[in-house]
Amino acid sequence: MITIRDVAKQAGVSVATVSRVLNNASCSETARLAVESAVQNLGYSPNANAQALALQNTDTLGVVVTDVTDPFFAILVKSVDQVAHEYGKTILIGIGYHNAEKERNAIETLLRKRCSCLVVHSKALTDQELINYLEQAKGMVIINRCIAGYEHRCVSLDNQRGTFLATELLIKLGHRKIGYIGSNHQINDEVERKQGYLTALQQYGLPVIENTSVQNSPDFEGGEAAMIDLLSYHSDLTAVVTYNDSMAAGALSVLTENNINVPRQFSLIGFDDMPIASHLVPKLSTIRYPIDLMATYASKLALSLINENIETPIHTQFNPTVVRRFSTDSCYQR
Amino acid sequence: MITIRDVAKQAGVSVATVSRVLNNASCSETARLAVESAVQNLGYSPNANAQALALQNTDTLGVVVTDVTDPFFAILVKSVDQVAHEYGKTILIGIGYHNAEKERNAIETLLRKRCSCLVVHSKALTDQELINYLEQAKGMVIINRCIAGYEHRCVSLDNQRGTFLATELLIKLGHRKIGYIGSNHQINDEVERKQGYLTALQQYGLPVIENTSVQNSPDFEGGEAAMIDLLSYHSDLTAVVTYNDSMAAGALSVLTENNINVPRQFSLIGFDDMPIASHLVPKLSTIRYPIDLMATYASKLALSLINENIETPIHTQFNPTVVRRFSTDSCYQR
Repeated sequence: MITIRDVAKQAGVSVATVSRVLNNASCSETARLAVESAVQNLGYSPNANAQALALQNTDTLGVVVTDVTDPFFAILVKSVDQVAHEYGKTILIGIGYHNAEKERNAIETLLRKRCSCLVVHSKALTDQELINYLEQAKGMVIINRCIAGYEHRCVSLDNQRGTFLATELLIKLGHRKIGYIGSNHQINDEVERKQGYLTALQQYGLPVIENTSVQNSPDFEGGEAAMIDLLSYHSDLTAVVTYNDSMAAGALSVLTENNINVPRQFSLIGFDDMPIASHLVPKLSTIRYPIDLMATYASKLALSLINENIETPIHTQFNPTVVRRFSTDSCYQR
Repeated sequence: MITIRDVAKQAGVSVATVSRVLNNASCSETARLAVESAVQNLGYSPNANAQALALQNTDTLGVVVTDVTDPFFAILVKSVDQVAHEYGKTILIGIGYHNAEKERNAIETLLRKRCSCLVVHSKALTDQELINYLEQAKGMVIINRCIAGYEHRCVSLDNQRGTFLATELLIKLGHRKIGYIGSNHQINDEVERKQGYLTALQQYGLPVIENTSVQNSPDFEGGEAAMIDLLSYHSDLTAVVTYNDSMAAGALSVLTENNINVPRQFSLIGFDDMPIASHLVPKLSTIRYPIDLMATYASKLALSLINENIETPIHTQFNPTVVRRFSTDSCYQR
């Protein structure tokens, strides 16, 4: 392997001078040219680990997500990668699978690798444990969760308002018997999203009917199973609010197989506005969760916390919005 | 920050002794206990960069993919991560976007970070450039591409055989006018997949009809546009082979909107067997591309190339296989 000594020898300067050139410290123009030429000739690649160690600040942005095969997290990672690329950095990812032990491992590994900037999606760890990490890592930002006292380092969305808007849309279309398909993961998102649905029913004076809320895994198969449960319990539901678009896709598949036309006989609304929403037939009405914008913001915020040359992005409160497509329509009696 | 010096001071030993303990070198039991206790008390975290530098061999497995929001690559990354986790390593990802400059950057960044094991998906770089990297990085493995002379470090699939099987299935169902929806990315996969389709037509004595092969972006929207083109050219096609499942999903959406029933009036077959294939209505017949198995194999191979304690996986030639679901049926005259 080519070392800094080889470069110094070829350039006819000291190792210290090579180091000064590589770190853009002052030196004579002659020395700089000689070193640059030797680096080029020898194909010398400065050791990134050694550089990072010297700077105590790597050029790596860490990101922790739950599962990269979920499009929500894939979009999050891609957005962080784009910001990293913009600032000449690369990303290191850890995967937590909604499991406390794995989330902890992922964060600790990134910290041990001296990732000074981190964008962390954690659902399984307690507020206190995350606060310990936030105190330890000054460039860490939490995404999709808000921790009291650390609001300025958290980027989140009002989940409850999202499902409130979804349910309200259905109520305004005349629906009175509206079901809710939720996630069986023990995370706050589910609690908040279900609460938004219940609050809308209450605010519009609609009763909460037994067995109109069911839970399953937050994916296509879970949506299928949940919709089958709802149809087994009730023949007179006319609409459903779902935890996310994947579950809505599963529900739609079951409705179609049962010859229940969406939206003529049944209305369906998703959550997140993932690409699948506009690939369904009919295209799915949903609530947009701007994870791309939020991840971009979170990455820039993380960078700005560590590097005073990077401007802190203007504080932004992200909002859920209704995206109305073709899976929701006026209620008619089934 | 807590340094090795703080640990030495608290343990009442030299920095060299702390280093010996941390690197599991021999030392007295008393010293070991004192150091371990000091590490615990102070919450000292050995600097991973410094350790990596010392070992010239990081605990990080690098992976280069094209775009993490494409499920194919998300599954690839997840499989590499699972192997990494099994061996107590983490992954560092680079994203190449089918662009030579970005693929080069991604590989070079990982090499600079001393990733000794790499799983690389590269389509834009030349064989020669990849050979240079393979020579430089002994733990690098290429996935989804085969480079002559380096077959033992490449994990690939016979794409041509895949579309041959897909086209043959349609021919055996009685279809005679079969279209092909391809990708407009200038990569080998497209050349090979189209060739498999043409070879099957030829082998079964079917003519190649003008304008029955169209190309577009290899995603849902590209599949929609390509299907519209095919329907504009021909009213008598009865089946289509597609470059991948996303394009098939787009094609299915257009057929449904045009009241052409799949599979009664029109048969459709995808490629890759991504989750979306079994989420469509009707569920999509497709060719399984075992990217999960291949990425698992590639990761283990990469690890074994560097670490003699890790057994080399038995050489495996992966095969495309037909997954028959409900989007293909016997031909009837439209």
